[in-house]
Amino acid sequence: MADLILRKDSGHVARLVLNSPANFNALSVEMIAALTDSLRDISEDDQVRVVVLAANGRAFCAGHDLRQMQAARKNADGGQAAFADLFDSCARMMQMIPALPQPVIAEVQGIATAAGCQLVASCDMAVATEGARFGVNGVNIGLFCSTPMVALTRAIPSRAAFEMLATGEFIDAARALHLGLVNRVTPPDALSEATMQLAETVAAKLPAAIRLGKRAFHDQLRLGLPEAYAASGAAMCRNILLPEAAEGMAAFLEKRPPAWA
Amino acid sequence: MADLILRKDSGHVARLVLNSPANFNALSVEMIAALTDSLRDISEDDQVRVVVLAANGRAFCAGHDLRQMQAARKNADGGQAAFADLFDSCARMMQMIPALPQPVIAEVQGIATAAGCQLVASCDMAVATEGARFGVNGVNIGLFCSTPMVALTRAIPSRAAFEMLATGEFIDAARALHLGLVNRVTPPDALSEATMQLAETVAAKLPAAIRLGKRAFHDQLRLGLPEAYAASGAAMCRNILLPEAAEGMAAFLEKRPPAWA
Amino acid sequence: MADLILRKDSGHVARLVLNSPANFNALSVEMIAALTDSLRDISEDDQVRVVVLAANGRAFCAGHDLRQMQAARKNADGGQAAFADLFDSCARMMQMIPALPQPVIAEVQGIATAAGCQLVASCDMAVATEGARFGVNGVNIGLFCSTPMVALTRAIPSRAAFEMLATGEFIDAARALHLGLVNRVTPPDALSEATMQLAETVAAKLPAAIRLGKRAFHDQLRLGLPEAYAASGAAMCRNILLPEAAEGMAAFLEKRPPAWA
Repeated sequence: MADLILRKDSGHVARLVLNSPANFNALSVEMIAALTDSLRDISEDDQVRVVVLAANGRAFCAGHDLRQMQAARKNADGGQAAFADLFDSCARMMQMIPALPQPVIAEVQGIATAAGCQLVASCDMAVATEGARFGVNGVNIGLFCSTPMVALTRAIPSRAAFEMLATGEFIDAARALHLGLVNRVTPPDALSEATMQLAETVAAKLPAAIRLGKRAFHDQLRLGLPEAYAASGAAMCRNILLPEAAEGMAAFLEKRPPAWA
Repeated sequence: MADLILRKDSGHVARLVLNSPANFNALSVEMIAALTDSLRDISEDDQVRVVVLAANGRAFCAGHDLRQMQAARKNADGGQAAFADLFDSCARMMQMIPALPQPVIAEVQGIATAAGCQLVASCDMAVATEGARFGVNGVNIGLFCSTPMVALTRAIPSRAAFEMLATGEFIDAARALHLGLVNRVTPPDALSEATMQLAETVAAKLPAAIRLGKRAFHDQLRLGLPEAYAASGAAMCRNILLPEAAEGMAAFLEKRPPAWA
Repeated sequence: MADLILRKDSGHVARLVLNSPANFNALSVEMIAALTDSLRDISEDDQVRVVVLAANGRAFCAGHDLRQMQAARKNADGGQAAFADLFDSCARMMQMIPALPQPVIAEVQGIATAAGCQLVASCDMAVATEGARFGVNGVNIGLFCSTPMVALTRAIPSRAAFEMLATGEFIDAARALHLGLVNRVTPPDALSEATMQLAETVAAKLPAAIRLGKRAFHDQLRLGLPEAYAASGAAMCRNILLPEAAEGMAAFLEKRPPAWA
């Protein structure tokens, strides 16, 4: 199972690479389990400051493994329990990404469809090649992408999301950038370099500040204004009392780089 | 009253046409009642898979019927009960659109102002001609568009909405597309064709999947992440257990079109 | 302390001008107190219909006063109480802006960083020069902009906000316009004129309608659809029963300007 995800660390950036190009990196039961394990490992790894989620092959990720799902229909219950488990374990894995202490950046080439598009939308940021295409096209085979929708409607405007979900049509990288699904678009041969550059920019910041900030970011998103300020004010206080923040602020006033470990 | 709304079905697409061009399809008490009746009929009509909401005449809809409203001021209570009824019945009609089992697409030419702009923003998607213009301009006559605001602020970014509401200024179709109020913009003579094409794209999908998906879409929009995933996961399970979804997935794996009724 | 904020009224528009150009209008304890006082005065001033928040010097506002903050570290508690007070009083001041009866427009030249960017995002609208730049760059000195984030994530799409917060990188005025942080961008020498023109457009509306509308706007933003319609319907009823709304509607039907006091 280890081979389904390759992990290659570079400095403080962990690259997780979906490694099942033969089925376009489908999110099979095994792939979801492997991703879950990799994310859990990273959540406990203080050396990792930023995660890049990349993919081998022509596609980023084509969603669930339809062949595996169809096989479950032969179970005594027609697949009911297997499907419930699959969608549940997938949703838990997707929610591990915003909950992870480290920012996660999707690195997208080719297609990202259905749960593959959800995976991009669940990351904190995304970089894509000019040729990348995004779709929540389950509706074309009679399966509306209701769970991918959760991540998608929190990343792009509501009516653009509805159109993608109801028509099954793809959007290209330029439109994904316009809508805010993707942060940066690159020529095909510059994808990894651009993603790693973004990752290293973030990895060069004070790790404790990034961790506090990422948690505060997701905690406050849907709160009312007073509750959001209460939560974020507490994060701000914890952050500024770190010795490294004192050093960062002193360094700024003295016009020198901070001397962080 | 039947004449206020024309219904013309074409295949599985129901076209509801606002038919009061003399007053720019104003949302009078009668027009709201007619729209409410039409939407209720459609909600119970299993033959209808998609609704197009179009308009006769030069304008899509110019909002409430000011003449009728001013007449109500002569009531013993100065119009208080009539206004409360009007805004209440209008808000209930607007909320019937996201609650309708079928997706609703606005087809917009000319102006869509005040409650007319709200009507566009309440639909699931919208197509407009290049010359269409959108405004929540009640403020120009001393009546801030507080109820249109509910739909508008859920369709476009907050500060762009505030500007429209506080200045009363119109935006054109290109800006409506940029902001996400409109999904597609067409030359004037291609409007109906483009809208019907979008409608037929959606009508060609599995109706049960679209119905489950539309409900799940609106149900999860403002929930926290765990609650949204719980709701959408349940929809996903119901969807995949449909025999037609089994057929759709089998057809995809066998590289043939699904054999749906 | 009065000198930290200059107030210059022009007709019904109050201009509040941050006046500490030597430290880029830093939000020191004193500046926050002065802004709080000015906003409180304006909230009780029926002559003021619109507020413009402008700044003297090359920058709009560079965020908190780092020198003052570092000095607080010498306190017996290492600054803990001072920091809590600072973030709390700043958050309360920021929340006074949406709660103010009058719309507030930021007029931005140069940089708006950290709490300075938060100040822009807390206003109801913003106008900026072509050369303006926006950043939440506290992360560069080890202090993630968790409180500016509250305002920023409510003004622009989520993933664009995350990128700004985690990279500390600036965006220019064109991108701020694209993302919805800014409503209008002007050449440098047209900034005040454009902002005042927008302010006067709003100031020419019926003040009671703007006040009711601004309150309803912020009250309904995060509510579910039925609750939002209930709140906004009540505002609509209060608005239409104003004698000035009756006059505005009559004037419209008679094709003449409303005769408001």
